[in-house]
Amino acid sequence: MAQNSVSLHKKLRGKISITSKISPLKLGDIKLIYTPGVAEVCKQIQHNNSLKYSFTSKGNNVAIVTDGTRNLGLGNTGPDAALPVMEGKSAIYSEFGKINAFPICLNTTDKNEIIQTIKAIEPVFGAINLEDIESPKVLDIANELEKILKIPIFHDDQHGTAIVVLAALLNSLKIVNKEIKNIKIVIVGSGSAGYGIAKLLHYSGCKNIVVLDSKGSIHKGRKGHMNKYKKEITRFTNPKEKGLLSKVIVNSDVFIGVSGVKNLLKVSMIKKMNKNSIVFALTNPEPEVVPSIAKKAGVKIIATGSFKYNNKVNNAIVFPYLMRVILDLKIKRITMKILYDTAHAIASTVNKNKLSINNIIPELGDTRIQNKIMESLRNTKLS
Amino acid sequence: MAQNSVSLHKKLRGKISITSKISPLKLGDIKLIYTPGVAEVCKQIQHNNSLKYSFTSKGNNVAIVTDGTRNLGLGNTGPDAALPVMEGKSAIYSEFGKINAFPICLNTTDKNEIIQTIKAIEPVFGAINLEDIESPKVLDIANELEKILKIPIFHDDQHGTAIVVLAALLNSLKIVNKEIKNIKIVIVGSGSAGYGIAKLLHYSGCKNIVVLDSKGSIHKGRKGHMNKYKKEITRFTNPKEKGLLSKVIVNSDVFIGVSGVKNLLKVSMIKKMNKNSIVFALTNPEPEVVPSIAKKAGVKIIATGSFKYNNKVNNAIVFPYLMRVILDLKIKRITMKILYDTAHAIASTVNKNKLSINNIIPELGDTRIQNKIMESLRNTKLS
Repeated sequence: MAQNSVSLHKKLRGKISITSKISPLKLGDIKLIYTPGVAEVCKQIQHNNSLKYSFTSKGNNVAIVTDGTRNLGLGNTGPDAALPVMEGKSAIYSEFGKINAFPICLNTTDKNEIIQTIKAIEPVFGAINLEDIESPKVLDIANELEKILKIPIFHDDQHGTAIVVLAALLNSLKIVNKEIKNIKIVIVGSGSAGYGIAKLLHYSGCKNIVVLDSKGSIHKGRKGHMNKYKKEITRFTNPKEKGLLSKVIVNSDVFIGVSGVKNLLKVSMIKKMNKNSIVFALTNPEPEVVPSIAKKAGVKIIATGSFKYNNKVNNAIVFPYLMRVILDLKIKRITMKILYDTAHAIASTVNKNKLSINNIIPELGDTRIQNKIMESLRNTKLS
Repeated sequence: MAQNSVSLHKKLRGKISITSKISPLKLGDIKLIYTPGVAEVCKQIQHNNSLKYSFTSKGNNVAIVTDGTRNLGLGNTGPDAALPVMEGKSAIYSEFGKINAFPICLNTTDKNEIIQTIKAIEPVFGAINLEDIESPKVLDIANELEKILKIPIFHDDQHGTAIVVLAALLNSLKIVNKEIKNIKIVIVGSGSAGYGIAKLLHYSGCKNIVVLDSKGSIHKGRKGHMNKYKKEITRFTNPKEKGLLSKVIVNSDVFIGVSGVKNLLKVSMIKKMNKNSIVFALTNPEPEVVPSIAKKAGVKIIATGSFKYNNKVNNAIVFPYLMRVILDLKIKRITMKILYDTAHAIASTVNKNKLSINNIIPELGDTRIQNKIMESLRNTKLS
C-alpha cells in the first residue's frame, strides 16, 4: 500500500486541479470574465457587498489550514509534509461535496501569526477548515477565529471526529442494546479530538466518561499536565477515577482511541471491559488495536479510522457533506446542536435491516448522507 | 457587454473549480491518496524536502495576491470586489498555462501584514503573482519578498506589462521602420506598470524616455510627489523635459498610457507627435484614447489593453505562458534579462508576413507563445 501510494503521488504530481468553469475559453468569453466586462461586476460588489456570494466562488471556497504540527498520527512533520494530506482532503471535498477546498499549509506555528494569516485571507473563503494543528493551541485559535471572522470555523479534528464517533456509537448501541445514559466510555487522547468527543458525548446524555492523556485519567484536582480545556472536561467527566488505562478500562462499555499511539490497547485491557464491548481505535495511519486482535480478545464491535477495514469511523464521511450544507445554508457558527443533529442524521443513513457489527456507519460516497444532514440542519436552522 | 458579464457571473457563481485529478474517487483510491497510504508520502517529504515538488501540486500552484487597492483602473475597491478579476486571471492561468492559480484577496492593506501573510502561505505555492496592489507599496513588497521567499515573485503589473509593451513595441517599430535607440517614448503613469516599462525600455536601448505622473514629467530635482522608485527612474530617463503631457508629447514617437485615466490623450496632443506615431493606451476598462479617435487624429499604430479591440496589449498573453516556463524551469528570480528575452520571444511569434498595423502582438491562445518563451529562457538559464 505504502509503495503504491508513493508511486501514485509521483505520477500525479499533485492531486488537485484548478480549472475554468468555462472551457475552452474563447475571446468572447474573456471579454466577459476578464477585462473589460468584469469591471461592472467589481463595481456592483463594491456597492453591495453581499453580491460577492452571488458573483464569485467565495461561498463555495474553503481553506484547509494547517501548520503541520500534528499531521495525521505522524506528529510535527512541518507544513511541506502535510500538503499531501491536505490535498487528499481537498480531493475528497471536491468529489463528494463539490466544494473548492484549497490547502493552506503555514510557514509558522505561532498562534497569533496563524490567527492573523487566516484573518488576512478571509475574503476569498466561505468557511475555514482547521486541520492537524497541535492542541491546545488549535482550540485557542478556533475560539479566537469564531470571534473575529464572519465565516464559520469548522475544526475537523474536534467537530468532524466528534460527529462521526457519535454517529457510529448511536448505531453500535442499537446493536448491543445499551443506552448511552447507562454506559461507561473511556476516551484516550485529550487533544482536539478527545476534547470534542467528550463534549458531544456528554451533550448526548452519557454520564460516565473518563478521558485519559499520556499521564492517565484526567480528573478534578489532578496536578500537572493540565490546561484550560482539560480543566473544562473535568467539569462533566470522570466522577472519581484515577490512574492509567489498564485500571480505568475496567467495566467500561466503550473504548475510543484518539491517542496517536499504535497498539496502545492490549488484549489484557480488552478483557477487563464489560460484555458486548465497543472499540473505536481511531488513530491513523495505525490504530490503537488491529481489528482482528480486538475481535479475538472478545470485542463485539470494532471500528477504526482507516479505509483499510470495515466500519470506517473517519471524518471523511462527515466533512464534505456537512460543509456542503454549512455553505448552502450559510451557517455562521458550528454549535453543539449542529454536531448532535448531524451525527443523528448520519447514523440514520444506515437502514435498520442493514445494521450489523460490520456495518455501523455509511460509506463515503453514500449520497444520502448529505440529504439527511440537509434535512436535519434546515430544521435546526428554522427552529 | 457589462450586463452580459453580470448575468454570466450570476449564473456561474464563481469562475473556477477545484477538482480531484482522480475522479470518480473509489474506495481503493482513497486508501492511496488519503489515510493510511498518504502517510508514507508525508514521511518521505519530511526526510527529503525537495520531494514536495514531485509528490504535490506545489510546483504548479500560484497565489494571485491582491489587497484590492488598485483593482483594474477602478481604484481601491477592497478585496471582495477584486475577487472577480482574480478569478478571471485564475481561469486564464488554468486555460492557457495549465496552472493551479488561486486568488488570495487580503483583508489588510498594511505592507508588513501583506508580506507576513504571503510568507506564511509560501509552502503551498511554487510562485507568487502580485496583482493590483497600489504603488509604491507593492514595489517594496515585491523587493522584500524576493529577499525572504524561496519561490519566485512575479509582479504582473510591473513585469507582465513591461514584457507585453516591449513585445508590441518591437513589432510596431519594424512596421514604421524606426529603431528603439533613436525614438522618444512618453509613458504616462508612474505606478508599477510605468516603472516596470521604463526600466525595460531603457534596458532595451531606448535613450529618450519621459515618464509622467499626475503632476507632469518626472525629472531630477523635481520637488514634491516623489518616492524612491520615481527617483530611480530619473537616473535613466528624461534628460531635460519639464511640464505636463501636452508639452512633453511634442515630437514623441511613442505614447504609452498606464495612467488609470480614460480619455486622457487628446486629439490636439496626438497631432504634436512625430510622424508614424505609436499609441498604446493601456488603461482598463477604458483606454486613454478610443482607437477610432486615435486613428482619425493620425496615429499609425494604436493598441489598448482591452479584449474589445485589435492589438490586445494585455498581460494575459504573457502571464500564463511565462509562468508555465518559470515553474517548469524552476526559475527563482525574475531578472531584466528574463523580461527582455520573453518580450523578444513573444514578438517573434507574429510572422513577418502577417505583421501589420492591426496585428502587432499574438492573440491569447496562440500556443506558439509558450514554446517560444521556453526555447528562449531555457537558453538564458543555460548561458
